[in-house]
Amino acid sequence: MKNFLNIQEVDAHCDVPCGIYDPITAQVAALSVIRMVDLMEGLEKDSSLSYKNSIVRYVGLKESECEKVKHEIRIIWGDFIKPPMVEKYPHIHSLVHNIMALGSFNRQHVSKEKAVELLEAVNEFAEIFWALKDVKTKKVKAHYPPNNEIVVPA
Amino acid sequence: MKNFLNIQEVDAHCDVPCGIYDPITAQVAALSVIRMVDLMEGLEKDSSLSYKNSIVRYVGLKESECEKVKHEIRIIWGDFIKPPMVEKYPHIHSLVHNIMALGSFNRQHVSKEKAVELLEAVNEFAEIFWALKDVKTKKVKAHYPPNNEIVVPA
Amino acid sequence: MKNFLNIQEVDAHCDVPCGIYDPITAQVAALSVIRMVDLMEGLEKDSSLSYKNSIVRYVGLKESECEKVKHEIRIIWGDFIKPPMVEKYPHIHSLVHNIMALGSFNRQHVSKEKAVELLEAVNEFAEIFWALKDVKTKKVKAHYPPNNEIVVPA
Amino acid sequence: MKNFLNIQEVDAHCDVPCGIYDPITAQVAALSVIRMVDLMEGLEKDSSLSYKNSIVRYVGLKESECEKVKHEIRIIWGDFIKPPMVEKYPHIHSLVHNIMALGSFNRQHVSKEKAVELLEAVNEFAEIFWALKDVKTKKVKAHYPPNNEIVVPA
Amino acid sequence: MKNFLNIQEVDAHCDVPCGIYDPITAQVAALSVIRMVDLMEGLEKDSSLSYKNSIVRYVGLKESECEKVKHEIRIIWGDFIKPPMVEKYPHIHSLVHNIMALGSFNRQHVSKEKAVELLEAVNEFAEIFWALKDVKTKKVKAHYPPNNEIVVPA
Amino acid sequence: MKNFLNIQEVDAHCDVPCGIYDPITAQVAALSVIRMVDLMEGLEKDSSLSYKNSIVRYVGLKESECEKVKHEIRIIWGDFIKPPMVEKYPHIHSLVHNIMALGSFNRQHVSKEKAVELLEAVNEFAEIFWALKDVKTKKVKAHYPPNNEIVVPA
Repeated sequence: MKNFLNIQEVDAHCDVPCGIYDPITAQVAALSVIRMVDLMEGLEKDSSLSYKNSIVRYVGLKESECEKVKHEIRIIWGDFIKPPMVEKYPHIHSLVHNIMALGSFNRQHVSKEKAVELLEAVNEFAEIFWALKDVKTKKVKAHYPPNNEIVVPA
Repeated sequence: MKNFLNIQEVDAHCDVPCGIYDPITAQVAALSVIRMVDLMEGLEKDSSLSYKNSIVRYVGLKESECEKVKHEIRIIWGDFIKPPMVEKYPHIHSLVHNIMALGSFNRQHVSKEKAVELLEAVNEFAEIFWALKDVKTKKVKAHYPPNNEIVVPA
Repeated sequence: MKNFLNIQEVDAHCDVPCGIYDPITAQVAALSVIRMVDLMEGLEKDSSLSYKNSIVRYVGLKESECEKVKHEIRIIWGDFIKPPMVEKYPHIHSLVHNIMALGSFNRQHVSKEKAVELLEAVNEFAEIFWALKDVKTKKVKAHYPPNNEIVVPA
Repeated sequence: MKNFLNIQEVDAHCDVPCGIYDPITAQVAALSVIRMVDLMEGLEKDSSLSYKNSIVRYVGLKESECEKVKHEIRIIWGDFIKPPMVEKYPHIHSLVHNIMALGSFNRQHVSKEKAVELLEAVNEFAEIFWALKDVKTKKVKAHYPPNNEIVVPA
Repeated sequence: MKNFLNIQEVDAHCDVPCGIYDPITAQVAALSVIRMVDLMEGLEKDSSLSYKNSIVRYVGLKESECEKVKHEIRIIWGDFIKPPMVEKYPHIHSLVHNIMALGSFNRQHVSKEKAVELLEAVNEFAEIFWALKDVKTKKVKAHYPPNNEIVVPA
Repeated sequence: MKNFLNIQEVDAHCDVPCGIYDPITAQVAALSVIRMVDLMEGLEKDSSLSYKNSIVRYVGLKESECEKVKHEIRIIWGDFIKPPMVEKYPHIHSLVHNIMALGSFNRQHVSKEKAVELLEAVNEFAEIFWALKDVKTKKVKAHYPPNNEIVVPA
């Protein structure tokens, strides 16, 4: 298997088809995972249809938001991150691998601690992403519950 | 048909299931529509498979990004905007209706002018959205092509 | 932001790409929402896997049928309804906005009353739609449970 | 492999989960396939981006409408049609098999004749479907282009 | 309605667009249905969020795997199987019809016996498929739980 | 960011929710990418609707098959591959990263050479996957065009 670098050489003048990458979608999705855990833990348990309806929906949303985190990060990692960037941030592969694992863990479990850990890993990825684009970042509290901090352009 | 307000009264203590709304997804999608038009107009026409491959892909992406704009705005409009807010911003219905029309227009045509108009309409919606949440906004140039301005929390 | 009407002037000779709109899909979906509520309320509660399996499926189907109602109505409203039609039926914006709200309410709750209200709002939309096309309508009982009345061409 | 009939015996008291089947969705989709062929054949060929944009979109819509026909018919055939009904209409299997083949043919080609044939096969299926439910049918011209006749409850 | 055979005559030189059909996807999905039933039956019932989270996910996965079985078999049956093959294996229509019914039964119930029956029906279909391509088959135990036997090329 | 290993320790008794992973889906998808390139290159260029219809469909299928390769490999990599396995095959991260890049390259271009390279990379991944499960493999020619070799359990 050839190294993908020689593709890059041929293709250096041509950017990816779109060039629009923004980790914010993954960050909002990670916030939603935390929110779903908060909502599930905040529900008063009873045997009503209403309770069951909410549980099924929150689990379903947690599933799709976890999946969105993984999908969005995979796209940026696979399409934007090139081998020379990996040399600069050699742990980016294991960071992304860990985001995948945390995404799956949060699908399989209901854990505030691990949901926050997922957001933190995605924030760390966002920091590297913006640094690679020479864009300064800051931490801001999200304007909606759960109001955790996210890393955005300054 | 009863007015939906009486639902709100019954439900005033309960937030929407998630409360996480952010027009940024629609704004990034609108930027992508502009980008697709730029890429299509920038391609040198020839009869190669490579050219055809690019055209099909750009049209396909333009389709799905236009749809994403419409879908995201519909969600915020339908779930977050309540009748009392409509009283405060009475033209919001026609603004959203116009975003739908512009979204379809941009699917049916390849027009830089109308793609920019779509982004501007979405920015106007974002301004109202953040004002309703008492969040100050600013205009920033997007950190990726086509680099148009978007309205984000200050 | 320019008024979308000037697009219409340029485009008056050209219909939307397809011209095939039919509210029947939204009406069948609204019937399905009622049906899901009936099935959920008709289930005998027990702790069996079979019971849980049914609840999860009915909630899931209720979710997707509510979403289908909202998606289909959004398409007809956004693509078929033009500003001059809004002048003729000025409450159509708030009717559609209400369908969105009712669609979400029915996702969040299990309520026969509100599910029927959703169908009625969709029927009202269908009546306007067919009137705009100069097609006479009638009310017929659906040929499948829950057998509520729907508005269809006479 | 056991015959599925003994499942039916165990399950005779329980209807399918929903009981809402209506071939109208497949019929509207088949009309859309014809419409796409008409639009494609009606386009004036040139080398503009606008022309290419339309072609890609019409092919894409033809694809998804053909798929919708096949998917909807498969659901009704697989879930509503039971072995005793097959005894009553022994050619229903080959009719459905033919709809699948016609659906694929219309994806692979641009042919008005074969698109109409697809609609006719779906109409024939609708006729059997309503007869099995003891619902009388009539043929009506669709209220939108291409205005072909469809079989609906009388 | 014309017989589809005359399409075949016109089209004899042209294969289906891709020619890549493999029942393995449906077989893996059928194995997953069995696996989901095993997991659901193996869970210790309690009132924890963790238990509910798992149940919702297993039911959801069972749904989508059943659907995948039906969708994949429909594609091969509808696109690869031609009328002359039906003459050779006249029961293939009722076999496929039964797979559809078993797929739906397994969505509606939690039954190891019926899940295994679904896999067996899919294996029988795979056997016919490979025989039609003159490829010899063997039965092998799957390399992952639930480790049931599947029919694959020898 | 904590190491994900401590999750594994807590979770050692519990497998991933399903345990059914099989690279064959990604391998079949990679074969389909090659097939699409072959079909595109084999088409005689003309200005007919039939030609355009085929091109749009082949590009569309190439898109979705490339995406399927990336999605399936991401799932196995993210869910099945654990840190201790990475120690055993330290280049697996860059192999997967390369599959992502090759998947995107094949979406953006029409290149037999690169399509074959994608299949080879997926085969290399399959070899590692089966080795990690102590399953011996062999190379077999696929039973359908393009008939390239794939790595499967012996």
